[in-house]
Amino acid sequence: MGITKGRLEAFSDGVIAIIITIMVLELKVPHSTELSALQPIIPVMISYVLSFMYVGIYWNNHHHMLHAARSVNGAILWANLHLLFWLSLIPFVTAWMGENHFAQLPVIMYGFVLIMNAIAYSILAYLLIKHHGENSLLADAFGNDGKGKISIGIYASAIAASFIHPWIGLGLYFVVAAIWLIPDRRIERKLTDHTNENNHA
Amino acid sequence: MGITKGRLEAFSDGVIAIIITIMVLELKVPHSTELSALQPIIPVMISYVLSFMYVGIYWNNHHHMLHAARSVNGAILWANLHLLFWLSLIPFVTAWMGENHFAQLPVIMYGFVLIMNAIAYSILAYLLIKHHGENSLLADAFGNDGKGKISIGIYASAIAASFIHPWIGLGLYFVVAAIWLIPDRRIERKLTDHTNENNHA
Amino acid sequence: MGITKGRLEAFSDGVIAIIITIMVLELKVPHSTELSALQPIIPVMISYVLSFMYVGIYWNNHHHMLHAARSVNGAILWANLHLLFWLSLIPFVTAWMGENHFAQLPVIMYGFVLIMNAIAYSILAYLLIKHHGENSLLADAFGNDGKGKISIGIYASAIAASFIHPWIGLGLYFVVAAIWLIPDRRIERKLTDHTNENNHA
Amino acid sequence: MGITKGRLEAFSDGVIAIIITIMVLELKVPHSTELSALQPIIPVMISYVLSFMYVGIYWNNHHHMLHAARSVNGAILWANLHLLFWLSLIPFVTAWMGENHFAQLPVIMYGFVLIMNAIAYSILAYLLIKHHGENSLLADAFGNDGKGKISIGIYASAIAASFIHPWIGLGLYFVVAAIWLIPDRRIERKLTDHTNENNHA
Repeated sequence: MGITKGRLEAFSDGVIAIIITIMVLELKVPHSTELSALQPIIPVMISYVLSFMYVGIYWNNHHHMLHAARSVNGAILWANLHLLFWLSLIPFVTAWMGENHFAQLPVIMYGFVLIMNAIAYSILAYLLIKHHGENSLLADAFGNDGKGKISIGIYASAIAASFIHPWIGLGLYFVVAAIWLIPDRRIERKLTDHTNENNHA
Repeated sequence: MGITKGRLEAFSDGVIAIIITIMVLELKVPHSTELSALQPIIPVMISYVLSFMYVGIYWNNHHHMLHAARSVNGAILWANLHLLFWLSLIPFVTAWMGENHFAQLPVIMYGFVLIMNAIAYSILAYLLIKHHGENSLLADAFGNDGKGKISIGIYASAIAASFIHPWIGLGLYFVVAAIWLIPDRRIERKLTDHTNENNHA
Repeated sequence: MGITKGRLEAFSDGVIAIIITIMVLELKVPHSTELSALQPIIPVMISYVLSFMYVGIYWNNHHHMLHAARSVNGAILWANLHLLFWLSLIPFVTAWMGENHFAQLPVIMYGFVLIMNAIAYSILAYLLIKHHGENSLLADAFGNDGKGKISIGIYASAIAASFIHPWIGLGLYFVVAAIWLIPDRRIERKLTDHTNENNHA
Repeated sequence: MGITKGRLEAFSDGVIAIIITIMVLELKVPHSTELSALQPIIPVMISYVLSFMYVGIYWNNHHHMLHAARSVNGAILWANLHLLFWLSLIPFVTAWMGENHFAQLPVIMYGFVLIMNAIAYSILAYLLIKHHGENSLLADAFGNDGKGKISIGIYASAIAASFIHPWIGLGLYFVVAAIWLIPDRRIERKLTDHTNENNHA
């Protein structure tokens, strides 16, 4: 099953690489060459930067999690496709939010897609841990997923706050991105600890 | 020839990853930010979900089948490209069906493309089995391909039923997807059996 | 330098996979759902099939040629990018030719791009042979490249014949594709002979 | 961490392959089939050739640099994503510059994106050298990065010169591309020297 894990990683990388890149196709080329032509692009660009960070974060965390996995099964393959499905909707809500200058409904929908991505990621993590056992390195490293739970909480708050003003929601999406930009050291550290323990034993 | 098999898998994964992702480009960003703006997107989204499942299923089964293969030849390379050709038409019929809210002709054409994909997959399977021998693990695992034959039968029924009402056809496409969402355990189980037999011998 | 060859193959596969797949984006979804709506798509589809075959042929031959290579150098990297450049223009001339129902100028430009691809491929082959030596397995397998020279001759004839009627040119493009659809056994056979000789020695 | 480096290379290759290929989608298919219809495409094509060379150069240099690296860390992962972000803006400025026939502002913005790419590449190089140590093979090979510093200088000059006439700026972008088209032999040569030294020792 090692080959299956490798091909799952390669396929996921391919899809994520395409998702992160096709977003740039939504940066519509302005017909004018005046400096003022760039002004309506600013919110589109802010959306793009935010989503680029999110997709980058997912690639990074997905990579670390699969790295710690030894093998996969059928349910994990489908949970992974489920995550890729919600990731694939990010370009759509990114463009909708950016082109409409952070209007309320697109900002809320953006948050909804982020929540669904977080849930899809949790399902994938849950199935991977179940597959490897509660006492596995992977389960140990993933821990109680505090960061993931906090993220979902902030997303929900962001959606609620968007009813006051969508910019608060947008700000909170940047907050979550900032939290995750610190790479997921949970698994990395545990892996290092594990290696050290083995060396000392 | 092992390298050729690896590169065939990588190339197929790349094409399938692009097919599954570019479909999202057909989700046209609405200009309005009213909730009502999302209503015409619902059928497009339903089409997208259906096709995402189908392309995911093909990736999954293609992966399992190639995994069981030891090597490939020229005819298999071309049969694989033939399958990729029909897979590449899925985004086209998906968009046509979704944007026209499941009108009769697009639903029928969607079924036609699914049938051609099923036939292309059967040709690929046939050539792989012929290449590995009738008594090979791959031939044994693929069996009489009951699931594949049933699928083609349901596709044909779906096309016929679309003349009564296209929603019946659409429903039947979801039925086939559901049948396949259970991962192809045929090959997986046989592989396990084979391993166990070897261990017992 | 073995890793460089591997990454060159992976990068080329990625670009070729994208080229073969984005062509489908030119299949514009018709707004009507009448059967007559599919009629203007027929020439677009014929163009698509032709180009799908050509890109598939290039992937296949590129794969076999690189497979026979032991290593690459800087000049080969650039010759490969040069080939990818001309391959990347195939979707453009494909769409232009198909949407204009095989009008004269697009058919001629299609032939021009095919000639440039053939030349770019020859340059790549020449540099690979020079790098491996005139007596190498690769040089021996590539031979005098009769098929490649015939192809360029037919492309030129097709362009000339398009001044009489573009359909003659189009027909000749299909003839060349048919010639190449028989996989490049030159290298494959030589590799087999070489293996046999080694076994007999 | 060797697997992480491999997956970083594969992901980067995927993104760069998509960037270099989606630029062709900006080559809008002309509706006319007259020879005059190709005239407005000429500047778009010149832009495309220039950007194809630049993305090719970045792929080439990125490949050589990562090849010399033994491992990566979290900061390097993010510096790499930062580089990919600026690379992903190349199709946007390419289309803007080409469609507006090298008007002043798009030419300046093109130079700005090139500068940001050069800076992002320097940050990645700096972090890789810091990670491997000042006396590492990678640090030795990268040297004082004269070519990179000269490039940034020429980009800045090109932007300034575009205020006189944008064609001077455009010409200077071609000059930098020409400088880099000679593959980055710095690392390659040092690697060879290193191997020779080891053999002599």
